Amino acid sequence: MEVHVNQHRVNTHTVHANRARMLISCPDGPGIVAAVSRFLHEHGANIVQSDQYTMDPEGGMFFMRVEFDLPNLAEALLQLEQDFGVVAEQFRMEWSISCVSRKKKLAIFVSKEDHCLVELLWQWQAGDLDADIAMVVSNHPDMKEYVESFGIPYHHIPVTAETKPEAEQRQLEVIGSDIDVIILARYMQIISPKFIEHYRNRIINIHHSFLPAFVGGKPYAQAYNRGVKIIGATAHYVTEELDGGPIIEQDVQRVSHRDDVTELKRIGRTIERVVLARAVKWHVEDRILVHENKTVVFN
Amino acid sequence: MEVHVNQHRVNTHTVHANRARMLISCPDGPGIVAAVSRFLHEHGANIVQSDQYTMDPEGGMFFMRVEFDLPNLAEALLQLEQDFGVVAEQFRMEWSISCVSRKKKLAIFVSKEDHCLVELLWQWQAGDLDADIAMVVSNHPDMKEYVESFGIPYHHIPVTAETKPEAEQRQLEVIGSDIDVIILARYMQIISPKFIEHYRNRIINIHHSFLPAFVGGKPYAQAYNRGVKIIGATAHYVTEELDGGPIIEQDVQRVSHRDDVTELKRIGRTIERVVLARAVKWHVEDRILVHENKTVVFN
Amino acid sequence: MEVHVNQHRVNTHTVHANRARMLISCPDGPGIVAAVSRFLHEHGANIVQSDQYTMDPEGGMFFMRVEFDLPNLAEALLQLEQDFGVVAEQFRMEWSISCVSRKKKLAIFVSKEDHCLVELLWQWQAGDLDADIAMVVSNHPDMKEYVESFGIPYHHIPVTAETKPEAEQRQLEVIGSDIDVIILARYMQIISPKFIEHYRNRIINIHHSFLPAFVGGKPYAQAYNRGVKIIGATAHYVTEELDGGPIIEQDVQRVSHRDDVTELKRIGRTIERVVLARAVKWHVEDRILVHENKTVVFN
Amino acid sequence: MEVHVNQHRVNTHTVHANRARMLISCPDGPGIVAAVSRFLHEHGANIVQSDQYTMDPEGGMFFMRVEFDLPNLAEALLQLEQDFGVVAEQFRMEWSISCVSRKKKLAIFVSKEDHCLVELLWQWQAGDLDADIAMVVSNHPDMKEYVESFGIPYHHIPVTAETKPEAEQRQLEVIGSDIDVIILARYMQIISPKFIEHYRNRIINIHHSFLPAFVGGKPYAQAYNRGVKIIGATAHYVTEELDGGPIIEQDVQRVSHRDDVTELKRIGRTIERVVLARAVKWHVEDRILVHENKTVVFN
Repeated sequence: MEVHVNQHRVNTHTVHANRARMLISCPDGPGIVAAVSRFLHEHGANIVQSDQYTMDPEGGMFFMRVEFDLPNLAEALLQLEQDFGVVAEQFRMEWSISCVSRKKKLAIFVSKEDHCLVELLWQWQAGDLDADIAMVVSNHPDMKEYVESFGIPYHHIPVTAETKPEAEQRQLEVIGSDIDVIILARYMQIISPKFIEHYRNRIINIHHSFLPAFVGGKPYAQAYNRGVKIIGATAHYVTEELDGGPIIEQDVQRVSHRDDVTELKRIGRTIERVVLARAVKWHVEDRILVHENKTVVFN
Repeated sequence: MEVHVNQHRVNTHTVHANRARMLISCPDGPGIVAAVSRFLHEHGANIVQSDQYTMDPEGGMFFMRVEFDLPNLAEALLQLEQDFGVVAEQFRMEWSISCVSRKKKLAIFVSKEDHCLVELLWQWQAGDLDADIAMVVSNHPDMKEYVESFGIPYHHIPVTAETKPEAEQRQLEVIGSDIDVIILARYMQIISPKFIEHYRNRIINIHHSFLPAFVGGKPYAQAYNRGVKIIGATAHYVTEELDGGPIIEQDVQRVSHRDDVTELKRIGRTIERVVLARAVKWHVEDRILVHENKTVVFN
Repeated sequence: MEVHVNQHRVNTHTVHANRARMLISCPDGPGIVAAVSRFLHEHGANIVQSDQYTMDPEGGMFFMRVEFDLPNLAEALLQLEQDFGVVAEQFRMEWSISCVSRKKKLAIFVSKEDHCLVELLWQWQAGDLDADIAMVVSNHPDMKEYVESFGIPYHHIPVTAETKPEAEQRQLEVIGSDIDVIILARYMQIISPKFIEHYRNRIINIHHSFLPAFVGGKPYAQAYNRGVKIIGATAHYVTEELDGGPIIEQDVQRVSHRDDVTELKRIGRTIERVVLARAVKWHVEDRILVHENKTVVFN
Repeated sequence: MEVHVNQHRVNTHTVHANRARMLISCPDGPGIVAAVSRFLHEHGANIVQSDQYTMDPEGGMFFMRVEFDLPNLAEALLQLEQDFGVVAEQFRMEWSISCVSRKKKLAIFVSKEDHCLVELLWQWQAGDLDADIAMVVSNHPDMKEYVESFGIPYHHIPVTAETKPEAEQRQLEVIGSDIDVIILARYMQIISPKFIEHYRNRIINIHHSFLPAFVGGKPYAQAYNRGVKIIGATAHYVTEELDGGPIIEQDVQRVSHRDDVTELKRIGRTIERVVLARAVKWHVEDRILVHENKTVVFN
């Protein structure tokens, strides 16, 4: 049914068949930008966008994102990557190159609250989220029909305290080896360290508070009890520390004494939706570099 | 299908069978609040929430919103309204009382852009919009299946320059006498003065700019050309002056030189959705009083 | 010298010789608004502004702020207060009435960071802060000449770990019995429970974080280390719990990975100034009611 | 007197004796970043920060800001500039290099409203504005003593409709040839085209509205009459078109029906101060490039 809705939409993302993005982290030092840009120029690439950031000019880390066009990218990429190894080794770089035309594959995890999932589906359908939603995984069956109406597979994998290890094993199986990033769209289960290890810096969670305030459960009730005048939401990469991973994006909204917990949740849902959608967009556009417990976001 | 989705939701609005809201506008003068609150107290009503505003203590207008509980409201209301006539006459009040349990009926007008409609449907389905969406009217057939999947009637009424009067006549017929408020959720047709007259201060439009900047067509292109650093959206009541009616709500988002028109539209869609949804919520909760070309919003 | 600067300013606050403000807290119940407004009307007062809030219609607390004009207020006030005792007793009210023409007296405490003090002095001088700055108290001598140039007494009272009790005693002496509210404008000493007891809900502190995140020392360094994307400031009443008192106002500003601790401090200074000034303004305009550890702010 | 206040402040700007900034605008094309970064690397410069922006990858304009350290900058700069001429000519660049250690010289123009001037003086004194305030020029004498107490020359040049040309001539004389940028800190006189021509893209004005809404006089009264729910301020370069020049920065604040014109002005003063101070900071840090009627701000 939504297929019909889909058809009238114009994809706002022009396909850039020959566009690629490069992410680099390394210790800062003289000549990095010169070396990278010369390398790209000599290989026939045209830099469309370039961002750098040096944490501390005296001995800090250097981060770079380059967006470039390269004729016949598909054929030329392997050679480019091989040749870049020399540059990368010289500056001890961690680096990666991705093709814009190869959309990232998302698995969205959800429990019963559906607003974050609905937002991602809507933005995807509107052409605003340039990724493939490959599947939805849930510990509840509620959203099955809704998700499948978009033509997206829905995996209902119940989780209990006893079955948790098996459930995670089952999740890893359905995810397979093909998923680039996992979105916890108000998925109310704690992810095990083993699972996290598989997807280091590739699991994005939305926490319904302005972290580090109100870590853990029932953050809106915590916010109400503390009497804050502003509430927020935080998208972050999942690490072994609960709600403690690198923050990608946060946003807030003013509230008043008139807003009870129900109203805070209502207001919060819109913040959560917007913040998670931004974080996912930046991730799939290769705009985020993680260093220790912080993010560099070139947006 | 969405019925299924609907079922798992908890309606966050407790039904207040005996709760009513009173809106009052009149020239300011001594004793108004005392007279109203004494009247309500003597009739057995308990004031739950009361807001007042005096435009100018010296000879200005007075505005009041009272939310009250009255035992057996359904039976008692008629007598209450009759008795209040004496108070109202004394202070030359314009006034109205509405029962919270009688949900307002909405007709949503839409063209091809669906994000505002989708947001209203989502908030309605989530129980955040305490109203009945009685129908959707469109000059295009595109959203028909989608809307009908919610069990909401969809009236496709094409509009051309030549058929405009007939189309409006047809719209008035399908609306009938039962609709409380009309929402122009990115409906891209100008409404005739005759139509506006039928629904004075009951047609809410979302304009995709921070009014009064960028009145008229293509506001995002106008914003891009002017090089503004912040874009916005405005919900307002429709009057005979294009984009000139009383403003209900506005919100904004920071943008930069990097954002082209396509990106401004993408960012703007989220602002439009949020601003229109707030305005509709306030209207159906009787929080808005209109005086000349301005609104008093008790929120 | 600044006297000259002072003279060219127009005081934007018209003197309201006959205007008073009443603050009420009591258990909710039927007829409160009616009783208060009838009482005022029968005593010849005209309600200019009235705000109410009920925490929970079922057995919650009721809060009310009424601004009214009463002819010959100065002579009539004592009788009004005596007569109101009957109403107050009936509803078990905590209440107070203050005359707008009697400006509240402020003592500002400051250490070495001067931006919050400078802001308050500027707003006061501009006529935007309707209060008397009666004195500045500091544990450092640095701002003495600057403060005295405004004609404001400056008390330099050094504080060390050993001399703290004597220093607080000395502070209480210079404050005397005449000060309505104490502003900790980045005063970097912890206030003792005994001192707090003297000025319960009358000491306003500005904390340089978005509480409850980053309680305690060096909040900007904490924020930098956590990698938050938004920083804030919080004005609150001082209680025995460090940075744990009732929050009056908060505001925030977006930051990025580019902002180091120095830059966070720079950005934060403007937030701190604005947030503290708002909180002080609301306090001196009797807009704040405290209930348990939360504030009701009628602004 | 303020000298004393000055002395206790720590300058937060470390002096970067060997740091320079380069601004480049040119038609986009392959190899620009590579050419610039190679040039700098071969001349012994280390790039600390680099930002680029391409308006449209197909035939648009390219903008670049590079911050770099060069040993013995003072001696090496002339040669560097001469050598760069070859690169610049190849790509048809407009470009400039400035030394961070050479602070830009500001002339601040002011009329009677002093809040923007006070903010700039305060930020300058706090070490947050890395520039020299060389003089204040005013058509009123009011601020003379205040400004001179900072050790800053104050030129009182009255302006009337008849004497305007002579007054501008006198202004140009006191400015001399040494001023880098002119700040109109609520200077309420229109600048002549001839004067603007002397300081093209070097005169920054603060307009007290969210442009392009409410161009011209009394914008707060205009905003009040239109009933907007958000007010703002705009810093822009002055061009021949009134309030029509390239926008540098804007910010906004939410208001309500309760805020009359006096209150809008009060709220607006803080927005104006913050927005102007940001624009001036970005200008003196060479973060702004102007293209046609828009700005590229690398912040």
